Amino acid sequence: MSNPSAAMLVIGDEILSGRTRDANMHYLANELTGVGIDLKEVRIVSDERVAIVDAVRALSSAYDNVFTSGGIGPTHDDITADCIAAAFDVPIDVRDDARALLQAHYDRSGQELNAPRLRMARIPDGATLIDNPVSTAPGFTLRNVHVMAGVPKVFQAMVASLLTKLTTGKPLLSRTLRIDRGEGDIAGPLGEFADEFPDLSVGSYPFQQSTGQYGSNIVVRGQDTNQLDRAMIRLETLFA
Amino acid sequence: MSNPSAAMLVIGDEILSGRTRDANMHYLANELTGVGIDLKEVRIVSDERVAIVDAVRALSSAYDNVFTSGGIGPTHDDITADCIAAAFDVPIDVRDDARALLQAHYDRSGQELNAPRLRMARIPDGATLIDNPVSTAPGFTLRNVHVMAGVPKVFQAMVASLLTKLTTGKPLLSRTLRIDRGEGDIAGPLGEFADEFPDLSVGSYPFQQSTGQYGSNIVVRGQDTNQLDRAMIRLETLFA
Repeated sequence: MSNPSAAMLVIGDEILSGRTRDANMHYLANELTGVGIDLKEVRIVSDERVAIVDAVRALSSAYDNVFTSGGIGPTHDDITADCIAAAFDVPIDVRDDARALLQAHYDRSGQELNAPRLRMARIPDGATLIDNPVSTAPGFTLRNVHVMAGVPKVFQAMVASLLTKLTTGKPLLSRTLRIDRGEGDIAGPLGEFADEFPDLSVGSYPFQQSTGQYGSNIVVRGQDTNQLDRAMIRLETLFA
Repeated sequence: MSNPSAAMLVIGDEILSGRTRDANMHYLANELTGVGIDLKEVRIVSDERVAIVDAVRALSSAYDNVFTSGGIGPTHDDITADCIAAAFDVPIDVRDDARALLQAHYDRSGQELNAPRLRMARIPDGATLIDNPVSTAPGFTLRNVHVMAGVPKVFQAMVASLLTKLTTGKPLLSRTLRIDRGEGDIAGPLGEFADEFPDLSVGSYPFQQSTGQYGSNIVVRGQDTNQLDRAMIRLETLFA
């Protein structure tokens, strides 16, 4: 039985412009690997309605889960929730349960639940809320799309509350062997090694040392500890 | 006249598994912003033939330029060049000019141009080589797709030699104002400000301070310095 698949959609002009470096993708990738959900694709698109709607539709039909980050705050450029509703042709409006969460939060902090803040209670029909223990304004799941905030602390808290509810699989394990020789020297036997273990995925990731010499990290991935151990012994013998 | 558009395709199981953090995307985003090529989308796909071919076709038809990183080395998992050829239905084989570059390089370093290394001279018919001053094995451009290495040093050198040859546009300039108030407090007037300057893009990027207080960076982007200056004066007046 294969693991559930996943894609991530990052909504972020600020990443495409190079102004900020995405942190959520790396975090989510590690979390999903740990619970056996296979992240197969990531897309980063700009804060434009057509781009978001198209990507949501494409990814939602291709993978078991889609995780989005960004664009669910109170400002004019936060259009993700409306785009998700549009992608699935469902109505969206302020929902009572989300409004109640926000009302209680702002009452506690003595702030006004003004019109911009109320936008964060706009939830597409049929969605389930995702808990936000950091700053209250909830994310939501509509069909197989999980919509979360872009602020890393909030994103991480939402992922934590979400992952307990998803169908997970067998964690993908990995072992790494660092070889201080260039890929061109090891590629022949490495290819034969990969053929020898067809159930494992064998990747070679070259790096350049400060001396200018090339080396490579050989990463072997699979779900069976015993098989991985056997493969690593073979690999060490090959390149000792 | 609008700027040329671009997409990036990162080929990388190692990023999707969370093992490494992509560095090339952030680098390319900054370089493209600087020369007025608008990066509109990034996709990260696994080292699988179908995933790469599909993404190349989709991005190539949607954007003026596609930049790829990864998968052009000598090992069994380096399948990018063959996938690019397949995406455009053109033949691929070892090409004499690429082989000559590699032969001279390995002659100089006293290493053998063995079969795995020779794979790096496989170039699709009709492609133009991209210079690699770091480690010789070339990248290539086929139609509007620019195929580059994943090792950051090599990727950056290839981008540098490539950018001199592309049609560029007007650099997108940006100004940032940090406001130490939560987005919910500023969203109303900020939305009116964005409406006031329809030629500028106005983004709000919230952050949480170590004190727990929220703040927001307001990023205003555009191509006209005078207009940006006027907008920033207005913004400072609004939130003084």
